[in-house]
Amino acid sequence: MVFQNPKIKKLLEKYSDVWALNHALALLGWDVNTYMPRGAAERRGVAVARLSVLRQKLFLSDEFKSIFREAEKEENLNEYEKGVIRVLKRELEFYEKVPPELLEEEAKVTTKARVVWEKAKEKSDFKSFEPHLEKIVEIEKKKAEYREFDKLYDALLDLFEEGLTSEDVDRMFSQLRIPLSKLFKKILDAGVFPQHHKLEDEKYDKEAMKYLNFLVLEYLGYDFSRGRLDVSTHPFTIDMSLDDVRITTWYHTSDFRRSLGSVVHEFGHALYQLQIDKALAGTPIGTGVSFGIHESQSRFWENMIWRSRAFIDFFYPSMRALLPFLKEYKPEEVYRYFCIVRPEFIRVEADEVHYPLHIILRYEIEKGLIEDSLNVSEIPQVWNEKMEKYVGVAPPNDRLGCLQDVHWSEGYIGYFPTYAIGSILAAQIKKALESELGNLEDLVVKGEFTKIREWLREKIHKWGATLPPKELIKRATGEDMNPKYFLEYLEKKYLA
Amino acid sequence: MVFQNPKIKKLLEKYSDVWALNHALALLGWDVNTYMPRGAAERRGVAVARLSVLRQKLFLSDEFKSIFREAEKEENLNEYEKGVIRVLKRELEFYEKVPPELLEEEAKVTTKARVVWEKAKEKSDFKSFEPHLEKIVEIEKKKAEYREFDKLYDALLDLFEEGLTSEDVDRMFSQLRIPLSKLFKKILDAGVFPQHHKLEDEKYDKEAMKYLNFLVLEYLGYDFSRGRLDVSTHPFTIDMSLDDVRITTWYHTSDFRRSLGSVVHEFGHALYQLQIDKALAGTPIGTGVSFGIHESQSRFWENMIWRSRAFIDFFYPSMRALLPFLKEYKPEEVYRYFCIVRPEFIRVEADEVHYPLHIILRYEIEKGLIEDSLNVSEIPQVWNEKMEKYVGVAPPNDRLGCLQDVHWSEGYIGYFPTYAIGSILAAQIKKALESELGNLEDLVVKGEFTKIREWLREKIHKWGATLPPKELIKRATGEDMNPKYFLEYLEKKYLA
Repeated sequence: MVFQNPKIKKLLEKYSDVWALNHALALLGWDVNTYMPRGAAERRGVAVARLSVLRQKLFLSDEFKSIFREAEKEENLNEYEKGVIRVLKRELEFYEKVPPELLEEEAKVTTKARVVWEKAKEKSDFKSFEPHLEKIVEIEKKKAEYREFDKLYDALLDLFEEGLTSEDVDRMFSQLRIPLSKLFKKILDAGVFPQHHKLEDEKYDKEAMKYLNFLVLEYLGYDFSRGRLDVSTHPFTIDMSLDDVRITTWYHTSDFRRSLGSVVHEFGHALYQLQIDKALAGTPIGTGVSFGIHESQSRFWENMIWRSRAFIDFFYPSMRALLPFLKEYKPEEVYRYFCIVRPEFIRVEADEVHYPLHIILRYEIEKGLIEDSLNVSEIPQVWNEKMEKYVGVAPPNDRLGCLQDVHWSEGYIGYFPTYAIGSILAAQIKKALESELGNLEDLVVKGEFTKIREWLREKIHKWGATLPPKELIKRATGEDMNPKYFLEYLEKKYLA
Repeated sequence: MVFQNPKIKKLLEKYSDVWALNHALALLGWDVNTYMPRGAAERRGVAVARLSVLRQKLFLSDEFKSIFREAEKEENLNEYEKGVIRVLKRELEFYEKVPPELLEEEAKVTTKARVVWEKAKEKSDFKSFEPHLEKIVEIEKKKAEYREFDKLYDALLDLFEEGLTSEDVDRMFSQLRIPLSKLFKKILDAGVFPQHHKLEDEKYDKEAMKYLNFLVLEYLGYDFSRGRLDVSTHPFTIDMSLDDVRITTWYHTSDFRRSLGSVVHEFGHALYQLQIDKALAGTPIGTGVSFGIHESQSRFWENMIWRSRAFIDFFYPSMRALLPFLKEYKPEEVYRYFCIVRPEFIRVEADEVHYPLHIILRYEIEKGLIEDSLNVSEIPQVWNEKMEKYVGVAPPNDRLGCLQDVHWSEGYIGYFPTYAIGSILAAQIKKALESELGNLEDLVVKGEFTKIREWLREKIHKWGATLPPKELIKRATGEDMNPKYFLEYLEKKYLA
């Protein structure tokens, strides 16, 4: 038995109500993005708001808090029990320090800002969004102040990546920025990986594409008895429980890598949830530990596995059978198509090489906003200058520039760095895995996905949120987060 | 504004949390029966149990009760406000009178019994189910005693059909039983409506059948922006909100009337929910008022509209286009196929003529159990005798006899009569509608479904649970529930 201590057990028993509400809220969210009739949105919104408040009330009730205080005092807790205390303490402290009025204001301001942002983006009109973003920055700064960290920005960053500091990020990003920019230019100059591939224009049959997605998921080892693949506007993964982790993808009817790549990316997220130790089900640690670690899992499967020659070789016959136009393209061509390297204005369209440059730019800007070294009004200019400098192209307008992402309008400042953490960690994990199982591509080309899954389960997944992210990384890979493996990986792959 | 009184408004505000939990529980239920991965069942069960208890706790909290007591004292409430008090009072009184221990025991016993029943049915082994049913009968009798009605059985009946008494049911069933048996025999003897039709064996293309179902729903006026049609093991309707009412059907790949008939039946249920006055959304009266009234709506669309020559004539070209085997069958043949009359052992397979005989039999038996005039052990014998006497055929075993229905194993004693109420009321409603809009078939053959929907909205649907069932029927049809219209309807249709 993982949980022994009676006071921890009592705490978990009480927590089950919160978990049940999380479960329901997850399904309500899944439904909104998949099958909900469009006319149902308004009443759904009312229900979700009510249930969220109810969840908060249960969590912050005197009864729950006093059971927590009792459990917190216990000594000789095991690792899992300590994990439960750590995770709950983080959330409880947040609500103790940050006044509810500020969170209400945040909710009100961001709800409005989200709508304004959407219109501003459409019209490429930053000025209309500016006052809203100013308000959001002020609120986030206040929120950060209440959390009483050494540095304001760190208080926000920690909400998405527990324990990560701007010092960590500065160190890693300074190691990455110039080498990445150089590598990117070098690859472009070499002209081996195309800037446009004819396969982008090939139309596919949607039903056949679905079969291909299902086939690939079967081989990778997605457990369809505990998950589903559906269609949505943007691909996502959502977990209702450790036995119910669903993914979605999209079908554009051409450029098939977008559909398949998303499937593999979301599979990485889902596998993490599905391989968490069942004993942690329904507890606060029965979930992924942080945004960065989660993203490392999706990137690992998307970049290190799917975007590899070995993957193409293993799946080429299946792909050819279901997408007949591939008869005109050799595996090498499909590989080049999967790995197109070219400058993109839009972050989510960026290849794995220059993607982190998009993140570094956002990080520098949002940190500047919080540290008062940058004004909201200066964003468009700074954005374009940095794009020119880091990526080599400046967007022609703000729609393709500083208005492209939804995050800031929702109050998510401190989120962006976790995407780069995902890339960095994916490479570091690959390195660690290979030191035990040998070359990753050798496994992939033989379809030995079980070995890969089991390694990830033992080293990372099974723990859920038991260990803090930094501790988990150290145990899994033998060292702290280190961006050098990411650079090595890219150089080996793209300069070969 | 429908709700004016400040104390009622306060009550409804508080009730919104209960509504939100109902909303979530409905979606969780829909998901279980449509898209949930099978491995997710156990954790889903935990979540649903937790949320159900949470809903009960909120509903029975001192805070909610005291707000209710305050509102209840108010004078000069309007019809809607009175409806709110009536509906909440019914539920609150139930929990005040019936001790929670008994309900816990009921939950425990029925959970077990449900499983035993399934196996007993499979093996046609009533003996193994007998002790469980005995326990259930004892529990239901106790429950009835606590409710303090004049008659024990009435206390159970009222749970499914507010205000209905066994005196009412006895009166109506005694008017129906012998005439129905005679009519049934007469139709069988005449041999006009077939006992088996070649169309039962015709195989259909599932995709084409889906299109036909969608097409028919479009014409009938199902609002797909507020609903969906999916697939499930047994067809059902479920409402998350007044803007989200979903239906399902099944596809057996042959005998297409089973798929289409279910769609029209469920449409009847859904339309009721979808046409409730929007002002009642999220309140205790924003729902159908009783099982019998709900069933009258599904039967009306299934029996009076779908099973009519006019329906066939209107949809024949569409059906022929999507189900090419119909080219061999004239509309008259399709009509006879829809209206097959033949003795069935299984209630849910029975035609509209002798269906109520199945109900009368069950009613007599369950009433006997509660009134102590019949022992559980006597059920199989009595069942078979009554089947022989009323329907003319005795089942060869208990699987096709007294073990066929799930209801008793779940503790639902007092439920069956509402099915017959549905048939009786559907005919009475048809009569009332025709007195204002003229012959129903004349409307159907011209596809004037809007007129029919609007009449139902005004007379029945818009009220939700504002009025008690008996009052609603009286206002809608000008008189109390009267089975003579049902007999007249059948005679006219099947003896013509």
